[in-house]
Amino acid sequence: MRFGRIATPEGMTFAVIDDEGTTAKQIKGTPFTEPEYTGKEWPLESVRLLAPMLPSKVVAIGRNYADHVAEVFKQSAEHLPPTLFLKPPTAVIGPDAAIKIPDFATRVEFEGELALVIGVPCKSVQAEDWKSVVRGVTIVNDVSSRDLQFADGQWARAKGIDTFCPLGPWIETDLDKFDFDDLPIKAHLTHDGVTETKQDSNSNQMIWKIGKIIEFITSSYTLLPGDVICTGSPAGTAEMVPGDAIEVEIDGIGSLRNPVERA
Amino acid sequence: MRFGRIATPEGMTFAVIDDEGTTAKQIKGTPFTEPEYTGKEWPLESVRLLAPMLPSKVVAIGRNYADHVAEVFKQSAEHLPPTLFLKPPTAVIGPDAAIKIPDFATRVEFEGELALVIGVPCKSVQAEDWKSVVRGVTIVNDVSSRDLQFADGQWARAKGIDTFCPLGPWIETDLDKFDFDDLPIKAHLTHDGVTETKQDSNSNQMIWKIGKIIEFITSSYTLLPGDVICTGSPAGTAEMVPGDAIEVEIDGIGSLRNPVERA
Repeated sequence: MRFGRIATPEGMTFAVIDDEGTTAKQIKGTPFTEPEYTGKEWPLESVRLLAPMLPSKVVAIGRNYADHVAEVFKQSAEHLPPTLFLKPPTAVIGPDAAIKIPDFATRVEFEGELALVIGVPCKSVQAEDWKSVVRGVTIVNDVSSRDLQFADGQWARAKGIDTFCPLGPWIETDLDKFDFDDLPIKAHLTHDGVTETKQDSNSNQMIWKIGKIIEFITSSYTLLPGDVICTGSPAGTAEMVPGDAIEVEIDGIGSLRNPVERA
Repeated sequence: MRFGRIATPEGMTFAVIDDEGTTAKQIKGTPFTEPEYTGKEWPLESVRLLAPMLPSKVVAIGRNYADHVAEVFKQSAEHLPPTLFLKPPTAVIGPDAAIKIPDFATRVEFEGELALVIGVPCKSVQAEDWKSVVRGVTIVNDVSSRDLQFADGQWARAKGIDTFCPLGPWIETDLDKFDFDDLPIKAHLTHDGVTETKQDSNSNQMIWKIGKIIEFITSSYTLLPGDVICTGSPAGTAEMVPGDAIEVEIDGIGSLRNPVERA
């Protein structure tokens, strides 16, 4: 089932999006329980999809794809193991909202990633139990100013600027339909009207699999419903400039497209 | 005026704490508006002070005291300028709540700091306008596992473990009573029943002053009411072990004391 958050003329609401991606059916409450329909529905094209969740925290795993470690850090993952960082909730935007690049954020790159949305408060989760705490999956673009990232040392600013966390288009809760060990992840960059596929990788490149990620994070942090986990970017990240558009695509979820503007 | 958040037999509530620190007067709503009293009050000793705010984000400035940069990083602040990082809201605890150290977090140190509580949504604030966006000040202990901090590279885990962000005891809103360029900050560690003053510094050691910090952060992040800014730790940080207690003291605010336990 796909849960979205939408802006309608009557206000913001959670909705179930049908498999064809054509209709949004309003629900009472939140995506954390079985949906209770209000009877209202809209053609999806007549409403605006927002980020499907406003998380209390966005926890990310960096350096989790060997190919990406090699391209960005010029070292092997053996010397630079995965690491945990945070993006602020204020960076989150939804589908089609603009990524806005301030002047001081130079060499801004996309990082298309699989995201997990937590469903229940949890701590000290064992790897094999990860599906019991995840409500669903979605797509995140871990937008990063490479220059700030390396100048600052800490990544919180380079990856945390307002609009630097596109999320969506919706939360897919049917985890069993995915093979998370073999999930294609792509990103298509449109520059000067020409679209090129820049990321064309697969979750089989992940160093830490999803269970290990959840176990690692929850050994330190309590996770709350709605918290978002970014599972790491595969290779192929590249610079975006104002005027571009970036679309991240994951089979079984859909795609997350955002234009790029000057802030 | 001092705003606290308290646990009473009837539930949690915001309250105004009198200057003597003896009485908590319940208010309607939150500390973000002028207080409207309900008429209920409690002796402070009969209620429990909680963290005065549950922030949507905790934004911290690292390496902001030259003396602390020298002691922890063994380098000068000239080579390692201040940097921005995030602590997760789930790390926040209140006065007298235990800092709980898990086995894997070794060499855990306190960092007593001045904290700012944001009062209004804000972005791109000029340094000289900082008081217009700050509701008040309080104390934060930026608890840090030095071993994890340096092993991970990113600080989000070492400084973000549950309970690693003691905050309180209350929010002091009378900013004009402080000289923020000359504010003593102390931390007293009790180990084996003996109390020693470990941090005994002053905000005159800050590299970036408060206005600059707010300007720097809000050039990238929108801040929301209740967000907490940790302004950096002065020298004197030291290891804490289970059984210890740590008390951070700032003139004009009060003190924030927390026992240390094994998680």
